[in-house]
Amino acid sequence: MSTESPAPTDKWYISYEIIHKLCQKAANEIKAQGKPVDLIIAIGGGGFIPARILRSFIREPNGKNIPIQAIGLSLYEQLGDKPTESIGKEVVRTQWLDFGNLNQHFDSLIGKNIIIVDEVDDSRTTLHYALSELQKDVAEMQKQLGRESEETTFQIFVLHNKLKPKRAELPAELFEQNHYLVGENVEDRWIAYPWDAMDIDEHTDRARKQGNI
Amino acid sequence: MSTESPAPTDKWYISYEIIHKLCQKAANEIKAQGKPVDLIIAIGGGGFIPARILRSFIREPNGKNIPIQAIGLSLYEQLGDKPTESIGKEVVRTQWLDFGNLNQHFDSLIGKNIIIVDEVDDSRTTLHYALSELQKDVAEMQKQLGRESEETTFQIFVLHNKLKPKRAELPAELFEQNHYLVGENVEDRWIAYPWDAMDIDEHTDRARKQGNI
Repeated sequence: MSTESPAPTDKWYISYEIIHKLCQKAANEIKAQGKPVDLIIAIGGGGFIPARILRSFIREPNGKNIPIQAIGLSLYEQLGDKPTESIGKEVVRTQWLDFGNLNQHFDSLIGKNIIIVDEVDDSRTTLHYALSELQKDVAEMQKQLGRESEETTFQIFVLHNKLKPKRAELPAELFEQNHYLVGENVEDRWIAYPWDAMDIDEHTDRARKQGNI
Repeated sequence: MSTESPAPTDKWYISYEIIHKLCQKAANEIKAQGKPVDLIIAIGGGGFIPARILRSFIREPNGKNIPIQAIGLSLYEQLGDKPTESIGKEVVRTQWLDFGNLNQHFDSLIGKNIIIVDEVDDSRTTLHYALSELQKDVAEMQKQLGRESEETTFQIFVLHNKLKPKRAELPAELFEQNHYLVGENVEDRWIAYPWDAMDIDEHTDRARKQGNI
């Protein structure tokens, strides 16, 4: 989910081709881990595009598509409400996991290797919320079902991580275990993603001039 | 959702830039209708990318983002089960609408202008399922709440419609009212979408040679 700051004059234009290659790079890192991914969780709307591209590069060993579940998260300020002091309260769920009529629920996550995908790690608020809520849901379900011994792995993939002070933390072990995957660490600039471009030819041309293609 | 036929030798390569422009074209048609869109429903995984791009071009009049809800649908054959005779039974929900903690449910759809997005209309089975199930859900909710008089509009947007015999129908009024929006009608060829490309530079180059850029 985009949490961009007010517009700086120097936007950083990213082409679709670069987006694609950043997903491919992350997929190679995931494959090098040697453990198949069971589920991709896309944080909408920014995570939809990288999640879908990532899926192409990390198929199941049998060639089947890895399922993608979408979750929707918005910061309160984006909904027009007042910001609050607690991080948890700044984020509102607009969609959450639901396994349709597959008769799967949160126990579907137990013992699985799950990748949460968003486009940018800006203030880290959204990622913190998503990860901690998912971990909480799974832990509760494991306890209920007496399946505490099964290890559930959550990883995060973002196209860009902005190198700036964050408003929320992610667990240190995520970084230690190389489960925080980033396409590119960038300085705190306005990132212009291609899907927001009103003129894609001009956008791609600017990206090319900046070497982002 | 992709429901591609076995591979023909002549694939049709589509660049990201063309995808972007097809979404822009549809957005212009939507804006020309004069009625704001309330909700985008993306059929995953193929609908994720066009849905996100479409959203950039059709903001609310106040500039706010239009919400995207994701639904997941798979054909039984893709899940490795036997195909059945009934269309309804060929499709399985892997994710359905859920309005998180916004305290909105299916009554959120009543009286709204909703666009269902997928990448390709191949056999039409998935689109038929999505539209008819959503219409049924809304009709039931309208009856329960005594709000039958409110008109809910469903539209469909696909990047490509394959000109071929379809296995399922869509209501004639959808076409009559120009609520079936298509980026491009194409012959029944294998469409190679950019997000499936293992080598995006080669893919884009092929698209360029075919004039699809």
